[in-house]
Amino acid sequence: MNINNQHYRTIWVDPDNQANIKIIDQRQLPHSLVIEDLRTIDDFARAIFEMHVRGAGLIGATAGFGMYSATLSSSNDLLATLQRAADLLVKTRPTATNLAWAVNRQLAVARNAKTPEDLKKKVFELACQIADEDAEACRCIGEYGVELIREISRQKKGEPVNILTHCNAGWLAFVDFGSATAPIYAAHHEKIPVHVWVDETRPWLQGAKLTAWELMQEGVPHTLIADNTGGHLMQHDMVDMVIVGTDRTTATGDVANKIGTYLKALAARDNNIPFYVALPSSTFDWQLSNGVAEIPIEQRSGDEISYVSGINKSGSMENVLVCPQGTITANYSFDVTPARLVTGLITERGIVKAEKQDILRLFPEKK
Amino acid sequence: MNINNQHYRTIWVDPDNQANIKIIDQRQLPHSLVIEDLRTIDDFARAIFEMHVRGAGLIGATAGFGMYSATLSSSNDLLATLQRAADLLVKTRPTATNLAWAVNRQLAVARNAKTPEDLKKKVFELACQIADEDAEACRCIGEYGVELIREISRQKKGEPVNILTHCNAGWLAFVDFGSATAPIYAAHHEKIPVHVWVDETRPWLQGAKLTAWELMQEGVPHTLIADNTGGHLMQHDMVDMVIVGTDRTTATGDVANKIGTYLKALAARDNNIPFYVALPSSTFDWQLSNGVAEIPIEQRSGDEISYVSGINKSGSMENVLVCPQGTITANYSFDVTPARLVTGLITERGIVKAEKQDILRLFPEKK
Repeated sequence: MNINNQHYRTIWVDPDNQANIKIIDQRQLPHSLVIEDLRTIDDFARAIFEMHVRGAGLIGATAGFGMYSATLSSSNDLLATLQRAADLLVKTRPTATNLAWAVNRQLAVARNAKTPEDLKKKVFELACQIADEDAEACRCIGEYGVELIREISRQKKGEPVNILTHCNAGWLAFVDFGSATAPIYAAHHEKIPVHVWVDETRPWLQGAKLTAWELMQEGVPHTLIADNTGGHLMQHDMVDMVIVGTDRTTATGDVANKIGTYLKALAARDNNIPFYVALPSSTFDWQLSNGVAEIPIEQRSGDEISYVSGINKSGSMENVLVCPQGTITANYSFDVTPARLVTGLITERGIVKAEKQDILRLFPEKK
Repeated sequence: MNINNQHYRTIWVDPDNQANIKIIDQRQLPHSLVIEDLRTIDDFARAIFEMHVRGAGLIGATAGFGMYSATLSSSNDLLATLQRAADLLVKTRPTATNLAWAVNRQLAVARNAKTPEDLKKKVFELACQIADEDAEACRCIGEYGVELIREISRQKKGEPVNILTHCNAGWLAFVDFGSATAPIYAAHHEKIPVHVWVDETRPWLQGAKLTAWELMQEGVPHTLIADNTGGHLMQHDMVDMVIVGTDRTTATGDVANKIGTYLKALAARDNNIPFYVALPSSTFDWQLSNGVAEIPIEQRSGDEISYVSGINKSGSMENVLVCPQGTITANYSFDVTPARLVTGLITERGIVKAEKQDILRLFPEKK
């Protein structure tokens, strides 16, 4: 998508140096656009753990390139080096399934390589392919999802379709297009009037910092709200549909997404509002069938609750303490929305009900 | 309750000057304790509108004293002056019903006064009485509510009772004791082990700034969380009950409370967790029967969404911008939780179901 009318992806290979992978340091958004170079496996692990990059698809793509960076070491046993890299990467964000998915694909291709040079080439090609697949999957999600928006627009006789989203499942969370935002961008591109309610998404404020910013860059009308607001809006017919992303999806359609998603799903159900989850199939964890019981939920530093970062009146980034010094905090990053609250899953192969049978109809190879 | 082991109310008459009413400027908490003097009706209106004071009971008590301040003007027509004061005060916070309740009581007593001196005396006495009644009602709420906590503690064989609360319905929101916190303080006083999950309560952060602070001052174990977290905790048996306050309650048991309360009520219902609302009966609006349709919802400045205030590393209060400059925001202050989601109302006369018949059983004079 565009930044200041110039096309960007969230991760790319330096055209002058293939060993140099470039990302946008998302911690600096929306206040400044900082491009960062990642070279070593530690750079990649830190970028994921400290959330220079975040979001289901982008974490996977970054892990893919991270594995490639590990192949550039001077080790005599590249497979062992890659295994260590995989272990390091997978630990950085325990809920995100795309991490394991990407590193396991890399390990499989590496094991089949014939020579160290062949291994390096194959791992690099697969890293690029993972990124390209992610962008293409999101583009397809947009094509399928826009149908839903078009239909509501028709029912509302062209009045703006009000879509609520939580966190950032935008292009910044993927390689391009985004998952939850892909149908929105497709609708906007088709000139279907849309308006997005953007949950600010405490504690990290991905909605305020990233979703609001990328919608602004694309010219999509939107309003930023506190996370507490969605229920009130739904009670008063101010939301036509909800679209969110997911960081891990069970084979039965339970979705782990940013903490607070479950609350919006409950409100949508209570007010008969469709609640859709958009995902490239790389976020499926096909082994799981009970999300609430089985998906590990990442806990992050309590400082993300106690301190809020933003720019002060001098224009500098600053962290301010918002509670009494010494307050104990808990910071769960995700929650699980049970499939029973999900109207449908928008995937790169089409839209399915959040239930095993319908999911497997689209992904028969996983039976 | 206590600040640094010294007893305070949230509003009191200067012992050296009856024309001078003292409040705690709650905008400065938890970082500094600033006592402010209110003298003119404009002081009172500004203190309520700008949230130097806030919370159902304290708004009522402040309005009571505000009406008294209006009687100290040099006007020849004190009743007309009081009517203007009433109009000014009622407009400051449209959702809070205690405002109209307090000013109407003052207008009634003023109309029955025989002389200007008699009027001033009666209005002063009623202002003090409104404050005393508020404190006493909250004390009684504590006595009734602690029964619920004691019973859960018994079932849990003395393991800490985990109570989730939203916003600040603590003593800072009333004259003393608080509504939602009164049963918690009573339990803590009885040495029943309790632990409070404190919703930070965006946008104004009453939970982070006020509830966490007052619980810390009283030594009640608590953990501060993002508003998004409660559903996850409830799914994982980490919440035994929810207790919140209310700013306006219909005769049928619908409650308007801080935005986001409805989402917690939905999560409590989905997980079979009791959801109680604690209130002095002054928050009933006996005219209303459909909260979602009838209770006016205050909208406040969008800057409360775009900017977060806290203390920076130099220890100064600072506002930081957390979204792109120019982002459009919406800031609804309250939502309405329908009675069907409320397990019970804890009032100064006892605990009732959130339904008209049971409410009127305790308040037969309102039939």
